[in-house]
Amino acid sequence: MTTTEITSPTLLDSAFAKALVQQIRANDPYGTYRNWSDEILLKPFVVTRAQKRGISVEGEVDPITQGRIMAFYRAIAARIEQETGQLSQVVIDLSHEGFGWALVFSGRLLIVVRTLRDAQRFGFDSLEKLIAEGEKLVNSGIDLATNYANICKL
Amino acid sequence: MTTTEITSPTLLDSAFAKALVQQIRANDPYGTYRNWSDEILLKPFVVTRAQKRGISVEGEVDPITQGRIMAFYRAIAARIEQETGQLSQVVIDLSHEGFGWALVFSGRLLIVVRTLRDAQRFGFDSLEKLIAEGEKLVNSGIDLATNYANICKL
Repeated sequence: MTTTEITSPTLLDSAFAKALVQQIRANDPYGTYRNWSDEILLKPFVVTRAQKRGISVEGEVDPITQGRIMAFYRAIAARIEQETGQLSQVVIDLSHEGFGWALVFSGRLLIVVRTLRDAQRFGFDSLEKLIAEGEKLVNSGIDLATNYANICKL
Repeated sequence: MTTTEITSPTLLDSAFAKALVQQIRANDPYGTYRNWSDEILLKPFVVTRAQKRGISVEGEVDPITQGRIMAFYRAIAARIEQETGQLSQVVIDLSHEGFGWALVFSGRLLIVVRTLRDAQRFGFDSLEKLIAEGEKLVNSGIDLATNYANICKL
């Protein structure tokens, strides 16, 4: 038994955590993560305030962080699709200064619209916060995709 | 009188040409274009098939071409705003290989959705084609923003 904090299994069992892990594993062409636990895969999404202060917001967002942002929004899109059957696209538009947009859309309906800023520091205070934020976007997306299903068909 | 082809003044007087020229002039912090005619400003948007073949699609889209793509879609957004009063955002997402998306959205409604490919070669066969393509996107955008004004308000 190490001193490592043990993550509540219910968090890792949540539908959003599973969707996010699936996105990460889907982008693993060389099987690097095959023997890694879900908990280890989600760990880099947790970035404390102190850690954030240590990350420069000068220059471009590094490709690994960009990949995490993409995985997060793709997981949201996947969950909305599971619940509503609406297929969607994810567009992440990042300027060279870490500003930009995260968009998830289905047909002509934008189901998620987020402005990004200081994207070099993308991350959440805790695993709880990561899952809560993901679920919040999923739920509002499901409401939109359900209430305006006709716009998804345009 | 030179041998230069004279552009029909009606084309340059079209609402779309004026909106596009306005976007270009708005991005002229040093006044470089102050004494340039509208016709000269729009000329780089005309890229013949032969010219396109001469442009490599390897590598990134150069910043000047990116600026032209942005001006084109911002002009569309500006025209739709003039006609419908709906404010909109333009997002251009280009990968390093010249593939990507051009999106114009208002609230939760996507009023223009275009996939981009070989964006290094962005341009139109003629000034007529440029205006026609712009007007077509403007008109379908106006229809959407009018028919689904409630989604623009979300």
